[in-house]
Amino acid sequence: MALSIGVDVGGTKIAAGVVDDEGKVMARLQKDSPANNRDAIMTTIIDCVNELRAQVEGVATVGVGAAGFVSSDRNTMVSGTNLDWTGVKIGDVVSAGTGLPVVVENDANAAGWAEARFGVGAGRSNVLVVTLGTGVGGAVIIDGRLVRGAAGFAAEIGHITIVPGGRPCGCGLRGCLERYGSGTALGMNGYELARFRPDYAARIIELSGGQVRDISGKAVTMAAREGDAAALECYEQLGDALGQGLADLAAVLDPEVVVLTGGMTEAGAILLEPVTKAFSTYLTARSRRPEIPVLISSSGQDAGLIGAADLARA
Amino acid sequence: MALSIGVDVGGTKIAAGVVDDEGKVMARLQKDSPANNRDAIMTTIIDCVNELRAQVEGVATVGVGAAGFVSSDRNTMVSGTNLDWTGVKIGDVVSAGTGLPVVVENDANAAGWAEARFGVGAGRSNVLVVTLGTGVGGAVIIDGRLVRGAAGFAAEIGHITIVPGGRPCGCGLRGCLERYGSGTALGMNGYELARFRPDYAARIIELSGGQVRDISGKAVTMAAREGDAAALECYEQLGDALGQGLADLAAVLDPEVVVLTGGMTEAGAILLEPVTKAFSTYLTARSRRPEIPVLISSSGQDAGLIGAADLARA
Amino acid sequence: MALSIGVDVGGTKIAAGVVDDEGKVMARLQKDSPANNRDAIMTTIIDCVNELRAQVEGVATVGVGAAGFVSSDRNTMVSGTNLDWTGVKIGDVVSAGTGLPVVVENDANAAGWAEARFGVGAGRSNVLVVTLGTGVGGAVIIDGRLVRGAAGFAAEIGHITIVPGGRPCGCGLRGCLERYGSGTALGMNGYELARFRPDYAARIIELSGGQVRDISGKAVTMAAREGDAAALECYEQLGDALGQGLADLAAVLDPEVVVLTGGMTEAGAILLEPVTKAFSTYLTARSRRPEIPVLISSSGQDAGLIGAADLARA
Amino acid sequence: MALSIGVDVGGTKIAAGVVDDEGKVMARLQKDSPANNRDAIMTTIIDCVNELRAQVEGVATVGVGAAGFVSSDRNTMVSGTNLDWTGVKIGDVVSAGTGLPVVVENDANAAGWAEARFGVGAGRSNVLVVTLGTGVGGAVIIDGRLVRGAAGFAAEIGHITIVPGGRPCGCGLRGCLERYGSGTALGMNGYELARFRPDYAARIIELSGGQVRDISGKAVTMAAREGDAAALECYEQLGDALGQGLADLAAVLDPEVVVLTGGMTEAGAILLEPVTKAFSTYLTARSRRPEIPVLISSSGQDAGLIGAADLARA
Repeated sequence: MALSIGVDVGGTKIAAGVVDDEGKVMARLQKDSPANNRDAIMTTIIDCVNELRAQVEGVATVGVGAAGFVSSDRNTMVSGTNLDWTGVKIGDVVSAGTGLPVVVENDANAAGWAEARFGVGAGRSNVLVVTLGTGVGGAVIIDGRLVRGAAGFAAEIGHITIVPGGRPCGCGLRGCLERYGSGTALGMNGYELARFRPDYAARIIELSGGQVRDISGKAVTMAAREGDAAALECYEQLGDALGQGLADLAAVLDPEVVVLTGGMTEAGAILLEPVTKAFSTYLTARSRRPEIPVLISSSGQDAGLIGAADLARA
Repeated sequence: MALSIGVDVGGTKIAAGVVDDEGKVMARLQKDSPANNRDAIMTTIIDCVNELRAQVEGVATVGVGAAGFVSSDRNTMVSGTNLDWTGVKIGDVVSAGTGLPVVVENDANAAGWAEARFGVGAGRSNVLVVTLGTGVGGAVIIDGRLVRGAAGFAAEIGHITIVPGGRPCGCGLRGCLERYGSGTALGMNGYELARFRPDYAARIIELSGGQVRDISGKAVTMAAREGDAAALECYEQLGDALGQGLADLAAVLDPEVVVLTGGMTEAGAILLEPVTKAFSTYLTARSRRPEIPVLISSSGQDAGLIGAADLARA
Repeated sequence: MALSIGVDVGGTKIAAGVVDDEGKVMARLQKDSPANNRDAIMTTIIDCVNELRAQVEGVATVGVGAAGFVSSDRNTMVSGTNLDWTGVKIGDVVSAGTGLPVVVENDANAAGWAEARFGVGAGRSNVLVVTLGTGVGGAVIIDGRLVRGAAGFAAEIGHITIVPGGRPCGCGLRGCLERYGSGTALGMNGYELARFRPDYAARIIELSGGQVRDISGKAVTMAAREGDAAALECYEQLGDALGQGLADLAAVLDPEVVVLTGGMTEAGAILLEPVTKAFSTYLTARSRRPEIPVLISSSGQDAGLIGAADLARA
Repeated sequence: MALSIGVDVGGTKIAAGVVDDEGKVMARLQKDSPANNRDAIMTTIIDCVNELRAQVEGVATVGVGAAGFVSSDRNTMVSGTNLDWTGVKIGDVVSAGTGLPVVVENDANAAGWAEARFGVGAGRSNVLVVTLGTGVGGAVIIDGRLVRGAAGFAAEIGHITIVPGGRPCGCGLRGCLERYGSGTALGMNGYELARFRPDYAARIIELSGGQVRDISGKAVTMAAREGDAAALECYEQLGDALGQGLADLAAVLDPEVVVLTGGMTEAGAILLEPVTKAFSTYLTARSRRPEIPVLISSSGQDAGLIGAADLARA
């Protein structure tokens, strides 16, 4: 049984663990992420690996998951999302510091891989994993393999166009799925309602401490749980965008299952119902194809490190 | 050197050929397609294979390309586009009639595969092939493998939504890429201009024999070649839709190259210019990624049979 | 009691009548319109007036209604819709030939005026009349007066934008209400469904003699009367566009009543239901304002000449 | 020469003045508005009138302008925008307290009337006045008369639909012109850019004290004055919406001139250029009609009271 260490490099924490080939975490540790200090982060990653190796024998590989475009060489960060480590050969650095073979993966890809291999997607070869957090990311698994793309930029599913000419996006376009389907978007939906229809959105405002400007997706979700009409309208709007986006992806990828993951999935049916309704409406040739279930992830916080570890082994 | 026979089953013709492992056609023949007669078509396919084997020694496999959803078993037609052969195990029937192993593939996938292996996509592992004819189809090649999807329905790129609530589509939705990016769509663009702005579209009407109702994509292309403003506007509209659609696909798939194929590519730069312009406009994170060239296919009519033959060998 | 002669100059017929101040036609006649011959049409108009005067005594004024932009001098045709009589001083010519004072009005304005004065709008001072025929026209009556605009171009309600970037329009724009709310639009809706979903639109095709290219609004209406789902969808699409357009107009004009007239109103409830549903949905401040009923015209074919006659008297 | 007193009832101030029939203010005073106290406001209005009468002889009429839907009886407030004086007969109350005939008008109508009579619209009979402030309001003057509508709800030009399904509006709809064309909308455009493209919108954020949540239309305007690209993009987006809205209104009303007024006009050419560009693009039959200039108001803060005074005289 080959063991692998996975490291999930987040904006505030670095989590690492020894993972067996069934996706079980045998040992784990977590350190603060030395924000904005590239070299310190590298050292922390290396420390994590070496500390874990001291605890568990038999580790053969290391996988590092980080936010950004990772080159298809699975070594170089082409463009980091949170950190300016453009061009850094993370794999080489960590390998030099640990003496182990290292692969680097996009963090959403790593988490999605864990979902597809060991989570609700387990046993399926064609899985679309959609991460709904402050942004919309994802992982595409086809014929049992992770799709990284020619340059390592694949699965940028948050940046397909949903509303031509719509909300501006960090990627430079307008109307991207991320601007209508993320937790941030949910908060924006609530903020717009609250600014222009404060009576209707009164409960959302109240749950935001009375300040329209403080409205976030979380307040909308709390209100939606209470059955608040304005909050449910925010979810309808979100679900419609996500359903259309997922249907576009399904037309191209034909997955067996779509797995939703990320912080927004805590909303459960409040999220799932409008999404699946819209997904059915927008899915091409629906009557002629097998049903494509949309499921909420069963994996927890460790998905990122488990996936990174497992991808290193492959 | 393993030889393979490819059969391309079209609505009016059945073309077949012996193909070597470099994609060269060593012998070929063509028969009329006995339209709407399922059994007669099967017999014709089998005849083609057996006649070719009589001509060339060393054929080890057969690949059949046909329009429709082909099951991921690469044997059964789930739902035919032109013919009602739902559920027919084409592979088994042709194998029984020829004594050779047979695989069945979607025809656009087969042609796209030839493009990616032996055409302008040769040497690349991640290729998006887009077929622009009366419809919009395509083939997705990732890491050197054809993407068929969980149920064999992948690469239905003509049915991602481009204009929410727009033109109705045969798939039951509205606003699909096929309704705005195909040759049929080009004709529709011309027809709409001609009905409501006949003076402006005068040259398109003239080239359609004076009848607005007879306007097709071909007449629009002829007028566009002459520099006619109305026809070029039809191409702008088409290119904008295609560019947006291709950009959405590139966000998900990150191909090295996009290859346009099908009858519409005869328009050359008239097609390519508005498409690439819009593709650049809608491509996410464009400044951070390698350029993704959009190329026009160099393959000819034989792409379908070459691809089917080659896929059978794999 | 002052009598007035009204002349309604159509593309194929010229209808004229002596009208009393309650909108009753005391004598009428009709002549073929000498198509495309401007001078012959003028002579025909003059002949109509003089023949009617020979029949009925006491005629004091003449009103001529014609399609096109009529200058606010109520004399000059700025730009004719069917005929090239740009700049012709129709009023002066007819006055010279009859010895009577003559005013010229846009034909939709004339018919709308009759509607508002003597039809279902009678007794109301603020009326929006919408003519639904091959195009979408209208008349706006505010505080009991016809709104002609600074240059005589008012009430071009068919040319407000409903679908940005949508179907091209004869006026040079895209997405005008006329392209989504007219009888022509209804036929277009049917044509699009029939081309791309022929099974679904089978009854519409059948009622068009089996030819998709022959589909008109009339065939769609016939099928809708039978309860055909595809035809009713065409009406939903039409009603949604009209409802949005009427709501925009109501936000600006605040009429007491909206009157629909023109050939399309023969469809009755099939038209009225989707229109009123959408009108309610899109009407601003609906809960705070009096209801604005949408009614179908009770006037017949004579509305054009009655209105022209009456406007001449004012 | 008949003198008239105009009273402009704002949310924070009540301004009143004696106005002659050429629109000149002969005496003026201003008091704080006793916010949220209906009776106190009435008393303040009456005090203003009586104090002014004590200063200037010959006042014959009083006009009161206030925000809300004013009934076409020009006496009753149907629904107040800022104050809950639904159903209050403001005219009767003020008349009882002053002994003068009183008319009540919507405040935007009153200001628009002053613009059309004494401002840049002077000498024109057909004027569209558009007030661009925190909202989008307006006044429609046709044939020299103010259009109030059947129920007093006319000229709600901020609530025509510009973006179907777009930003939610206080009126209960989505996508109203006010949500895309007001100062609030300008701030929203800036806020969206700043949230999702902070680098690009850095100057707007800086001018908002470094807080994205504090971004207002004013900060966008300041940045636009410096030539900041992001701020100019916000204005492009605003101008496109306004241009489309104005073009829709011009199709219906055919004004001689469009006058922009309200706080946003301080931006001058920064506002006017994108608006006029879009207006030209969306104006129907543009080549056949006289040009409709879009001008910025020359009237100052007194427009509201001048208009109210003048309307009382008519």
